Amino acid sequence: MTLPFPLPTYADVEAASRRLAGVANRTPVLTSTFANEATGAEIFFKAENFQRMGAFKFRGGYNAISRLGDDAKRRGVLAFSSGNHAQAIALSGRLLQVPTTILMPLDAPEMKIAATRGYGAEVVLFDRYKVNREELAAEMAAERGLSLIPPFDHPDVLAGQGTAAKELIEDTGPLDMLFVCLGGGGLVAGCALAAHELSPGIKVYGVEPEAGNDGQQSFRSGQIVKIAVPKTIADGAQTAALSPLTFALISRDIADILTVSDAELVETMRFFGARMKIVVEPTGCLAAAAVLGSKIPVRGKRVGVILSGGNVDLSTYARLVG
Amino acid sequence: MTLPFPLPTYADVEAASRRLAGVANRTPVLTSTFANEATGAEIFFKAENFQRMGAFKFRGGYNAISRLGDDAKRRGVLAFSSGNHAQAIALSGRLLQVPTTILMPLDAPEMKIAATRGYGAEVVLFDRYKVNREELAAEMAAERGLSLIPPFDHPDVLAGQGTAAKELIEDTGPLDMLFVCLGGGGLVAGCALAAHELSPGIKVYGVEPEAGNDGQQSFRSGQIVKIAVPKTIADGAQTAALSPLTFALISRDIADILTVSDAELVETMRFFGARMKIVVEPTGCLAAAAVLGSKIPVRGKRVGVILSGGNVDLSTYARLVG
Repeated sequence: MTLPFPLPTYADVEAASRRLAGVANRTPVLTSTFANEATGAEIFFKAENFQRMGAFKFRGGYNAISRLGDDAKRRGVLAFSSGNHAQAIALSGRLLQVPTTILMPLDAPEMKIAATRGYGAEVVLFDRYKVNREELAAEMAAERGLSLIPPFDHPDVLAGQGTAAKELIEDTGPLDMLFVCLGGGGLVAGCALAAHELSPGIKVYGVEPEAGNDGQQSFRSGQIVKIAVPKTIADGAQTAALSPLTFALISRDIADILTVSDAELVETMRFFGARMKIVVEPTGCLAAAAVLGSKIPVRGKRVGVILSGGNVDLSTYARLVG
Repeated sequence: MTLPFPLPTYADVEAASRRLAGVANRTPVLTSTFANEATGAEIFFKAENFQRMGAFKFRGGYNAISRLGDDAKRRGVLAFSSGNHAQAIALSGRLLQVPTTILMPLDAPEMKIAATRGYGAEVVLFDRYKVNREELAAEMAAERGLSLIPPFDHPDVLAGQGTAAKELIEDTGPLDMLFVCLGGGGLVAGCALAAHELSPGIKVYGVEPEAGNDGQQSFRSGQIVKIAVPKTIADGAQTAALSPLTFALISRDIADILTVSDAELVETMRFFGARMKIVVEPTGCLAAAAVLGSKIPVRGKRVGVILSGGNVDLSTYARLVG
């Protein structure tokens, strides 16, 4: 398989980190005596639900727009997203004074659509069960002369996401294992670049919803497997397939891909609300659910877990945890 | 009015701070662009929902038990509480190897009763609409030879609570105003000791539930006013009256006492969940509700707000914010 660009490296994560300094929040690393006692591990939660716009996606979106030339910045950018990438691009565009157009699915969480508009983006809605969003985005970008910034299939996006793991390991010191949610694979691929550099010997795991285990199928079969848009409460991981870029990095850098059920995500949301007093969106619970649900032995290990975001309609949250 | 002990001072808060170092969490100070833009103020939220056992009460409970003599520690302590003070004493007792007995109302939140038992305390339930808890506690303490540690009417408890404001102002620098929830007045009285020392000229406000404004009535009339146990979702502020100790300090050190409605508390819980991704219990929202609801002008000011705790049954939380 030939990729249209060389694979990003840790140097790209470092460069992204410099661009994000003073702009992105350096989110806290949280611990829980309860979680440690329950698992026998020492767990460090990187709380990206406290990131600007409420999720890690700000890191990649801001990094990617920053890297555009002046002409491209003037014309503006286009993005498609089930939610958090949309807000990330919209907010980054506002901060960098770049006009943004966002394609969002009709059934995206209301608060994500409202927040994206609130950041000043033009939002165009489409039916994700009928329309191929990649094709629609490519058409619109060409027609309007916009730079397309996809949610994960882009080296600058991926390098930006990796700064989450860089900060985590800088704060905790070396870890034995790192668990990261997986939709299109941008976060886990970027985080793996940082993790292997800063914590040699670490094992990095991707965690997907059971209903959407295309990543696991792809990883284990050695070729990209595409599935129908999965139905899961983890709306940030409803991707149909990895991209050639993320698949190449994941195949090389990841120890395995695990899955958790929607019921396990709800249990994990409850744990975060009741015990740790934080709101984590379903997708943000994927990695933690694998650790707390003992999908793989963690006893005695130093374990990093990325909580990817906290953007869930509060009414949906209440329905799920109530 | 003659008090049975001299009024505590900032030196007592400092001493408590030394006892709590490395034992209590130094909780984070959070900010919200949204809240700052909405109010025109610069607001600093001291997140005691991240304190050990989920609320500021750990500070006072631990400080008070630490100060007991060896004999008293061996015999054990007794406490009465609608919830968080119970857990504070239970956990502090476990850490200091002091046996604890806790009187709790029958209708206290389930998770608070369960957590108190989980820390190893003996829990005795009573009907708070029929029984005077102070009298019952005094009887039981005498019978069993236990040291009674009341939830607010105690100089060591109050000095411990003041460490929350000490840490806040150490982190933020001088503030113009500080808002603190008020039930029995221990937190606001202790915090005022620290605030006036570390931020001369600061104005400190207590905030009560509308349905239980005995503190406001007492403050404004110049004598302690006692009311029936108020019905409010702020279960940590369902006190009938200030104590002579807290009334003396509040009369001297507080600028005013404000009130907020249960509906405003729910709105504030929603703000914390949706915007800041944190779970704050109704009582913990009192101070923030006064600021966000503009009960007093804050525009242009540097404002501290104590979020007192996060211990709310998740099913209750879901019902309130959903």
